[in-house]
Amino acid sequence: MKKPFTLLLAALLAAGAMSQVQASGPYRNPDNKNLSDPLEGTYPVPYKLPVISEITAQLERVRGFIDRATPSRIVDKQTGQPITDFASPIKTAIVEPSPNNFGIMNYEMGVVHAGLMNMRALTGDARWTALTERHLAFFKERTPYFRAQQEQFNLGRANSFVRFIKPHALDDAGSMTAAMIRARLNGIGPDMSAQIAQSGDWVHKQQVRLKDGTLARNRPQAWSVWADDMYMSIPALAELGRMTGEKRYFDDAVKNALQMSGYLFNRQTGLYTHGVHLHDRESVEFYWGRANGWALLAVSDLLDVLPKTHPGYKKVLEQHRRALRGIAQRQSGSGLWHQMLDRPDSYLETSGSAMFVYALAHAINQGWISPTNYGTIAQAGWAGVSSRINAEGGIEDGVVATTLAGDFVYYYNRPVSVDAMAGYGPVLLAGAEMIKLLNNPQVEITDKVRTYHYRPKAQ
Amino acid sequence: MKKPFTLLLAALLAAGAMSQVQASGPYRNPDNKNLSDPLEGTYPVPYKLPVISEITAQLERVRGFIDRATPSRIVDKQTGQPITDFASPIKTAIVEPSPNNFGIMNYEMGVVHAGLMNMRALTGDARWTALTERHLAFFKERTPYFRAQQEQFNLGRANSFVRFIKPHALDDAGSMTAAMIRARLNGIGPDMSAQIAQSGDWVHKQQVRLKDGTLARNRPQAWSVWADDMYMSIPALAELGRMTGEKRYFDDAVKNALQMSGYLFNRQTGLYTHGVHLHDRESVEFYWGRANGWALLAVSDLLDVLPKTHPGYKKVLEQHRRALRGIAQRQSGSGLWHQMLDRPDSYLETSGSAMFVYALAHAINQGWISPTNYGTIAQAGWAGVSSRINAEGGIEDGVVATTLAGDFVYYYNRPVSVDAMAGYGPVLLAGAEMIKLLNNPQVEITDKVRTYHYRPKAQ
Amino acid sequence: MKKPFTLLLAALLAAGAMSQVQASGPYRNPDNKNLSDPLEGTYPVPYKLPVISEITAQLERVRGFIDRATPSRIVDKQTGQPITDFASPIKTAIVEPSPNNFGIMNYEMGVVHAGLMNMRALTGDARWTALTERHLAFFKERTPYFRAQQEQFNLGRANSFVRFIKPHALDDAGSMTAAMIRARLNGIGPDMSAQIAQSGDWVHKQQVRLKDGTLARNRPQAWSVWADDMYMSIPALAELGRMTGEKRYFDDAVKNALQMSGYLFNRQTGLYTHGVHLHDRESVEFYWGRANGWALLAVSDLLDVLPKTHPGYKKVLEQHRRALRGIAQRQSGSGLWHQMLDRPDSYLETSGSAMFVYALAHAINQGWISPTNYGTIAQAGWAGVSSRINAEGGIEDGVVATTLAGDFVYYYNRPVSVDAMAGYGPVLLAGAEMIKLLNNPQVEITDKVRTYHYRPKAQ
Repeated sequence: MKKPFTLLLAALLAAGAMSQVQASGPYRNPDNKNLSDPLEGTYPVPYKLPVISEITAQLERVRGFIDRATPSRIVDKQTGQPITDFASPIKTAIVEPSPNNFGIMNYEMGVVHAGLMNMRALTGDARWTALTERHLAFFKERTPYFRAQQEQFNLGRANSFVRFIKPHALDDAGSMTAAMIRARLNGIGPDMSAQIAQSGDWVHKQQVRLKDGTLARNRPQAWSVWADDMYMSIPALAELGRMTGEKRYFDDAVKNALQMSGYLFNRQTGLYTHGVHLHDRESVEFYWGRANGWALLAVSDLLDVLPKTHPGYKKVLEQHRRALRGIAQRQSGSGLWHQMLDRPDSYLETSGSAMFVYALAHAINQGWISPTNYGTIAQAGWAGVSSRINAEGGIEDGVVATTLAGDFVYYYNRPVSVDAMAGYGPVLLAGAEMIKLLNNPQVEITDKVRTYHYRPKAQ
Repeated sequence: MKKPFTLLLAALLAAGAMSQVQASGPYRNPDNKNLSDPLEGTYPVPYKLPVISEITAQLERVRGFIDRATPSRIVDKQTGQPITDFASPIKTAIVEPSPNNFGIMNYEMGVVHAGLMNMRALTGDARWTALTERHLAFFKERTPYFRAQQEQFNLGRANSFVRFIKPHALDDAGSMTAAMIRARLNGIGPDMSAQIAQSGDWVHKQQVRLKDGTLARNRPQAWSVWADDMYMSIPALAELGRMTGEKRYFDDAVKNALQMSGYLFNRQTGLYTHGVHLHDRESVEFYWGRANGWALLAVSDLLDVLPKTHPGYKKVLEQHRRALRGIAQRQSGSGLWHQMLDRPDSYLETSGSAMFVYALAHAINQGWISPTNYGTIAQAGWAGVSSRINAEGGIEDGVVATTLAGDFVYYYNRPVSVDAMAGYGPVLLAGAEMIKLLNNPQVEITDKVRTYHYRPKAQ
Repeated sequence: MKKPFTLLLAALLAAGAMSQVQASGPYRNPDNKNLSDPLEGTYPVPYKLPVISEITAQLERVRGFIDRATPSRIVDKQTGQPITDFASPIKTAIVEPSPNNFGIMNYEMGVVHAGLMNMRALTGDARWTALTERHLAFFKERTPYFRAQQEQFNLGRANSFVRFIKPHALDDAGSMTAAMIRARLNGIGPDMSAQIAQSGDWVHKQQVRLKDGTLARNRPQAWSVWADDMYMSIPALAELGRMTGEKRYFDDAVKNALQMSGYLFNRQTGLYTHGVHLHDRESVEFYWGRANGWALLAVSDLLDVLPKTHPGYKKVLEQHRRALRGIAQRQSGSGLWHQMLDRPDSYLETSGSAMFVYALAHAINQGWISPTNYGTIAQAGWAGVSSRINAEGGIEDGVVATTLAGDFVYYYNRPVSVDAMAGYGPVLLAGAEMIKLLNNPQVEITDKVRTYHYRPKAQ
């Protein structure tokens, strides 16, 4: 009984060439109690019915990691000493550097808050959002200080609060806007409505757009449409719609969901290309995993709050189903997805994979897709993603920040790092949604002939 | 910052991990007599014009392996001692366990008989079917005993002859029905007509069907259509048609060949998905190698006996040609096919590969496809398949029994084993058909510029 | 039993073989001056903005290698001694054997001359074409001798000048015809017009054709159309058109560019199959890298000289753009392309890759495609290709001569060798065209966020 992959694994184990996390395989499925079953193999990830208590413990570790990685103190960057006098700003005051270089106002943190709030909603346990409350309270308390620093010293991007005080791109505004609105609607943290207004205004009014109203960038080339920007705008617009009840926000969110998909989604491959340069549409397509994750998360967030009566609802849902199917079809044999989704010789990447597990499980839980064809994909995806959570709660094998580039060498060789912040929120979202799926009263899960079947309960 | 592939290489180099079998390559093509030809490389499999005496010797070894693996004695499962008194049944009587867990009434054995009968027809040598005669004689002789055991003890699936006495799925009935009819029409073994009637009736009348008449399963989900079931039904129906001359059997076989292909075959990829769940057709597709093999074998067997005048003949042939083309296009660089046909990072699997070699070579021999584009694919396929026959006649790297599952982690990680019975019949079929192809008077084979060309003789 | 991947490793272990060249990675991008940038990784090839002086030095090495590999003396093959008396021919007179088996009249040499002439045009430095002048002078001087040898001894293919004296296939005629015309029009070397007339006549008049006028072969099967033959004919026809101003040559070139593409180009995959056998069009497709390279080079050469007013110009350009897009989409993560373009488990091959880099960079320089989507692909391609130039100017990892075959085992396992002549001309073409691109006043290149952007200057 030989399998190339098993041999490979054996060799890797022998050579001791794997991270602590991954070295714990190969795994035998513990749900099969027959230890000498010749029809049971081993797996590169813990293939089994996920156990809620294990997921919860894993997410606790992740939460702890993020908590330690995001100090909320102000220090003097020259001395490293905490600032205690906030009466008048000094030029060298900064937010205390994160040991992992996590920016607490960065868009990646908006996803973290989403995941934590989902865990709180699921468990009723307020400890999940203590971090959210701490961050928001810090923002609320210290924004005046950094605003004063800005007025006095005009530090630009060197001002630690620049994203809130003087946003200059969707990256600065959209994701945290959505997070702050969700916190507000759930009564978590202080009243951030002033900041919501400022950041939301950037998204809805100030970001550059194409003539057809599509949110765009004028860098690295004028004009570009990025899949990442779907997440940096659509959830914020959707949440502004929910918060205010104003239809114009939903209209804008729907328009961008459909138009950006129009520019970026390839119906033949079922995938989003990372971005397009508008002055040459005959583009090579780069199916970068995380870009697809941002697109799926964005559309999913929109569908969560968009009134079913909105004229665009059906089209948005159809697009989401198409994209989910394309993603499901590309899962690797380890449950994770590749850095380049259509390239099996590119590495397995965690942040995109976590986004896909969330999007698939959530779509089942919301009734947008059937559990039959997607439940096991989500479960196998979680087997892969969860194997990348290390003992300290760090997320392994997530790719670092990546720009819209024009060649495959760049994408294939982007570094991965436990400090790659973009994977943390998605892992929280994915784990929380898997718990929900395992508890979903509409879904029946059976363990049969060494694998699993998800189906509608009504069946 | 890790690159999985580089790590993998480093680890393998360090560990030097290779099985004995794998070390037997690389091969140089012995048909090129110029030993210092700089334009001749080496191959991972024995790339050369196959030699009939070598194929025959390989198939002899395989036949011997199966013979040793399929005892036809009745023993007491508590003592292991042979039963000698067949006057009245005892509860613990079973067919003597196979050292390789080969079930002599299993569907895989129907394919073995097909292969052995083909070798007998090709060589005129009755030793090829001694095993078939032994098995059938044993079935004929002992069915009354196990029928009595069933009536007295009602052991259900624990009765060794349950598949014949009380079939409950296509797996129990179709493949052996086809084998028994072929044996009967060739005058091999005893008269099995009673069993043919019972097993055939299951296929034609008792198996569950969709409303449109398509043969289906209600497990693991209601309703499912499986590619495997094409082989578990269509050849039996086709042979019933040939044996009885009754059109209704051909009609049923044709209907299922076309309708099951309609559910399962993707014209864009040219491949069959393993199965579909009827209540959600928006399915992820799993191009499992052996499932495609079952489909091809089934349709090929139908075309062998279907009158050309049947109104469905042309459509069935068209579907077969489409599927053969899809398969040929997916061959790997070692001549074998991958466990997942569209996934080059899944392992090379023997049973599906052998089925494809048979289906391609047979279609050329029958004049369904041209030798020009498929002869070399079949030959290269046999180079791969034959390299998996070990010294004892065991088939290496065949995947064990595999259910219709819903995620890629399951399929990629199914174990392979010399005890995986499903590869044995296909290897016999493939080898026999290659001999026929090499002897085919309609086909001209030339060895030219370090490779081979097959073409119609008339050319 | 044998896993190609494992075999590969076995070979590596046995040979101790990473070539010196490849072992010099991984590379860090020197354009990023921040040595502790956590967002900068390493690359398997020198990913950076190419430096013109480095390219020039690399091409100098390649030129030197070819110069040493192509002696232009006549020797007695029995004694190895130079012939000094050319009054009457002797039977054993041959062109002095190349240490690398480079044939100086072979079609591969036509590409070398094209590359050298481009470097001369670019630099104004006549040293680049000294080799071209030496070869052409030798041909001019010694053709009468070998013609006499042929008349006296009738050596057929054993006559060293047989390709010029008695061509028998497009391989003998087209590529060198194009080279000789270019030399003539640029005033390089002696007047070769007699030879141009003879070789050109083979292409335009004598080579076998299909009924529709498409240039074809009657080997290995009658009839076959090969992608390679696009290069062996179209550039010669196009240059004959340019030289003579006669429309019939352009018409023939355009007809063949469009009709051969019609037989060979798959619009769905965006790739050329290596060849088709006309009596069975239902063909398996082999997307061999170099075959695609020949097709692209051929059409590119045609577009260079075809009057824009020619009725076929637009269709030829459209086809070229389609093919360039297909190629760009298939680039590997190392900048090179795979031996089989759609198969990431086949090896990385240099000659095809160099052809693609040339074709892409040239198409940008000619304004046929936008720099936006293709400039970085060309640059990354050059990073890969240039890493295969060894210290002596040899080209590593180029595949040796390869016939039109019918199975994947053949193509995957073709040897690579520093003596594979077909890579040398393309590397010269690619490097020269990259220099032109880096100097192109219409193109703006920026180094931004660890990658590169090419765009039209006007933007």
